[in-house]
Amino acid sequence: MKQWERFCSWYSWYETIGLGVDLSRVGFSQEWWDSMQRPIQKAFDEMEALEAGAIANPDEQRMVGHYWLRAPERAPSQQIAQAIQQAIQDVQEFAQAVHSGKQQGAQGPFTQFVLIGIGGSALGPQFLTYALSQPKRDKLRAFFVDNTDPDGIDRVLEQLDGSLGKTLCLIISKSGGTPETRNGMIRFRQAYEQAGLSFPRHAVAITQPGSKLDRLAIEEKWLARFPIWEWVGGRTSATSAVGLLPLALLGVEIEQFLRGARDCDQQTRLRDPRQNPAAQLALMWYFLGDGRGAKDMVILPYKDRLELFARYLQQLVMESLGKKHARDGRIVYQGLTVYGNKGSTDQHAYIQQLRDGLRNFFVVFIEVLQETWHQPVEIEPGLTAGDYLHGFLLGTRQALFEADRPSITVTIRDVSPYSLGVLIAVFERAVGLYASLIDINAYHQPGVEAGKKAAAAVLELQKQLVHFLQTHSSQAGFTVEEIAQGIGRPEERETIFKLCERLAVNGRYGIQKGGGVGPLEARYRIPST
Amino acid sequence: MKQWERFCSWYSWYETIGLGVDLSRVGFSQEWWDSMQRPIQKAFDEMEALEAGAIANPDEQRMVGHYWLRAPERAPSQQIAQAIQQAIQDVQEFAQAVHSGKQQGAQGPFTQFVLIGIGGSALGPQFLTYALSQPKRDKLRAFFVDNTDPDGIDRVLEQLDGSLGKTLCLIISKSGGTPETRNGMIRFRQAYEQAGLSFPRHAVAITQPGSKLDRLAIEEKWLARFPIWEWVGGRTSATSAVGLLPLALLGVEIEQFLRGARDCDQQTRLRDPRQNPAAQLALMWYFLGDGRGAKDMVILPYKDRLELFARYLQQLVMESLGKKHARDGRIVYQGLTVYGNKGSTDQHAYIQQLRDGLRNFFVVFIEVLQETWHQPVEIEPGLTAGDYLHGFLLGTRQALFEADRPSITVTIRDVSPYSLGVLIAVFERAVGLYASLIDINAYHQPGVEAGKKAAAAVLELQKQLVHFLQTHSSQAGFTVEEIAQGIGRPEERETIFKLCERLAVNGRYGIQKGGGVGPLEARYRIPST
Repeated sequence: MKQWERFCSWYSWYETIGLGVDLSRVGFSQEWWDSMQRPIQKAFDEMEALEAGAIANPDEQRMVGHYWLRAPERAPSQQIAQAIQQAIQDVQEFAQAVHSGKQQGAQGPFTQFVLIGIGGSALGPQFLTYALSQPKRDKLRAFFVDNTDPDGIDRVLEQLDGSLGKTLCLIISKSGGTPETRNGMIRFRQAYEQAGLSFPRHAVAITQPGSKLDRLAIEEKWLARFPIWEWVGGRTSATSAVGLLPLALLGVEIEQFLRGARDCDQQTRLRDPRQNPAAQLALMWYFLGDGRGAKDMVILPYKDRLELFARYLQQLVMESLGKKHARDGRIVYQGLTVYGNKGSTDQHAYIQQLRDGLRNFFVVFIEVLQETWHQPVEIEPGLTAGDYLHGFLLGTRQALFEADRPSITVTIRDVSPYSLGVLIAVFERAVGLYASLIDINAYHQPGVEAGKKAAAAVLELQKQLVHFLQTHSSQAGFTVEEIAQGIGRPEERETIFKLCERLAVNGRYGIQKGGGVGPLEARYRIPST
Repeated sequence: MKQWERFCSWYSWYETIGLGVDLSRVGFSQEWWDSMQRPIQKAFDEMEALEAGAIANPDEQRMVGHYWLRAPERAPSQQIAQAIQQAIQDVQEFAQAVHSGKQQGAQGPFTQFVLIGIGGSALGPQFLTYALSQPKRDKLRAFFVDNTDPDGIDRVLEQLDGSLGKTLCLIISKSGGTPETRNGMIRFRQAYEQAGLSFPRHAVAITQPGSKLDRLAIEEKWLARFPIWEWVGGRTSATSAVGLLPLALLGVEIEQFLRGARDCDQQTRLRDPRQNPAAQLALMWYFLGDGRGAKDMVILPYKDRLELFARYLQQLVMESLGKKHARDGRIVYQGLTVYGNKGSTDQHAYIQQLRDGLRNFFVVFIEVLQETWHQPVEIEPGLTAGDYLHGFLLGTRQALFEADRPSITVTIRDVSPYSLGVLIAVFERAVGLYASLIDINAYHQPGVEAGKKAAAAVLELQKQLVHFLQTHSSQAGFTVEEIAQGIGRPEERETIFKLCERLAVNGRYGIQKGGGVGPLEARYRIPST
């Protein structure tokens, strides 16, 4: 009885955007809710300043403008507003030219595109195209290269073998210098050349105007270029050309997608948290994780099409919130861990732990009301497969509730361009509001540089050790110790060992292992031929 | 300097199985290591009893025999040993008959298979086929239906449209009664019938002998049946027919896969933990999570082909270790949370949080020495895309280390049937040994029943409310309250509301919403036609 009353109090359905949020299975009190009104109002103030063009990323001295992408009239200048509108129009016209065959490849109309990008340049497009693809209706098929794994790139190339001349290559990198993306592009360029085809005739760049990639595209006269402005972050770029072009190429009505995000933004600007689903999510994250990310967020959409949503959210949430410092410089080690795939599939993987084991999580169920685009088919008298799916959602939610495991339920009407716009926008804003609540900057990523720098140093070290082996000969080969001394890098012995092991296995530069297994004994050499 | 010495001490390369384990970036002391020798020896004792046929799953009174699958001579009876050997031979012969065209579909030789299964019946095959698929070499293409989402099932059917008569259907369910799998099978059967084709002529069952599914396959004369014995758990079924048949159909040499697992089992039976990579992993999990899963395990393979490994491990680890009770009945709420996808892709998603944010995790890097099956291609003078990939692995590991975030590195030679057998076996045994260390039963899953029962109750409730609406008429419609009273289930008002909302959106049974938005006001009815 009590739960029913709580449900009636804390379940909200926002008819205009087709979104429901149910907080009734989170155990906060009215008193706690009231105590959060002042902090959430402060978060609204900060969001208002952000939307008006405040410098929100002090590291990079830039504004944060993803909300303008679906409401250009809110942009802080006429120039930005026009640029946004122009880009949307350009995307639509280009997609139409591809669909009509006005733009084609060397071997005829484009039948697929391959998107080469990583992180924010791939996760949104992957999530969105997987969600909206209809194999028999899609105007183009979508392929992705989202890493610098040569074997992975080659596997995509194998699938496209013989039809590169009908393949459109979308190269996406905001900075224009992302190494993984650059490597994918170079490998594809090689493949086009081997097939006797011109790469530029099949290439499109989505990048910051003036970037290295942009200049290359101009110089080589690529088919088209679309902008990622400096005020668009990778993890909030789904409503920029990054998300729009792949969707438009698929044949999706991108205005519906933009309208969903726009309408949701409008709803989530309301300062009454009971009217604001993004504020509700942010407040629940705060309550459930004690304002310090103490619990993991398990995202469980009961819908195959939403299978990649948790991966998309991993970046949006963890890159935004995973910060060492508060805005005033205090060390806080913040964050909010996200994982999950889909229900009911994941029930068969780890619901055992969720129900019985560690109490280190809360669940966000994503419920989709519409079963299918087609007429529902009964699989036994009176019941459809979708009835089962929904039954598993409700049953699992209940079983967790009974074991005192909290959950939030987010409901959308269907998986459509509009509702995906809503879903992305509500989580984007929840992240922004939550960042205010915990007093961190959601719009930079200072922690990713260290790994990149260390990786560059590894590649440099590789060159040095290869040079050493190429210019020194020894029948028995050199130990790691000897190589490290030889190149004057004794502090890098472990990395030298790791590099030598891998290069020898791959027969690179003719490097061979000359006996010895462990890091102290192993020897490496390049035999003179 | 210190790290190099630590690396030399705690890096082990097992040449016979092509596996390396590096513990040097976990901060345990020699003293701690020594203190764990007694517990790990006890774990070895328990594992020995298990392998000899002890009853390890007291709930279900069954043995746990996945280690016998690759070493039939170790099975506790001649009968079991013969059954294992027979099944391997049957799988090989069936795959060969399919490849040679001796077994074909109504429209010709099979060109693809669709695997219908969920949890342990899908995760292993998905991981393995994704890892080993070579589009131009595969003898059959693989499709999967791993849920009861009607839209998701239909999307696979759309892709197979026109070629069902060349599609082999593998129906996999140990119990033979998994609802998601049954629903997928029924939907496929309908599709075959609509296409004028016989479903049984294209169907294979993998299930426990004597199950409902097994009896159906016998009765309808399906193409073949393969056993999942009661002593094989779903999450450890990769080396049973569940994993072997899909691989064999793809064209993979399953003996190599089995040999990898077998050799790894042999290595991980050694009672010196320095010689035993599984024991090393188990000990590290214990140290890093304080014996209570206090840290999440982030699995980061730097290899596209291993992208599904973390999903596979989610089940193996979380379903095995996520337990409420210790073996003596104490309440312990144990577990070990697993997530991850692949590097360097995930660096662009959440390395920000890993390096700067919450200290609630450790990383297991999976390093693959071989770059590609093909000749490595340079993408700039002297460097391959694989050099970058490896550089990112080493760089990220170093950046995390400098921020005092621990990691384990597991190295394999390549992504081959053999090394996948090793990888699966080493984690299987690590889970078993770790379960002994924390004194829980890794071989049952008592927590999954509650959700299933609750789901069945939801479906029953749906029938009742539909019946009520079909037999009662009201111009204005009935409120949730009225329906609940009408069917005598006032305690189920929330579920009744959720069901009515969804049924109305889908127009099921002609149910319509008669105005009112919230759970208290909304009204539902079936208009008389």
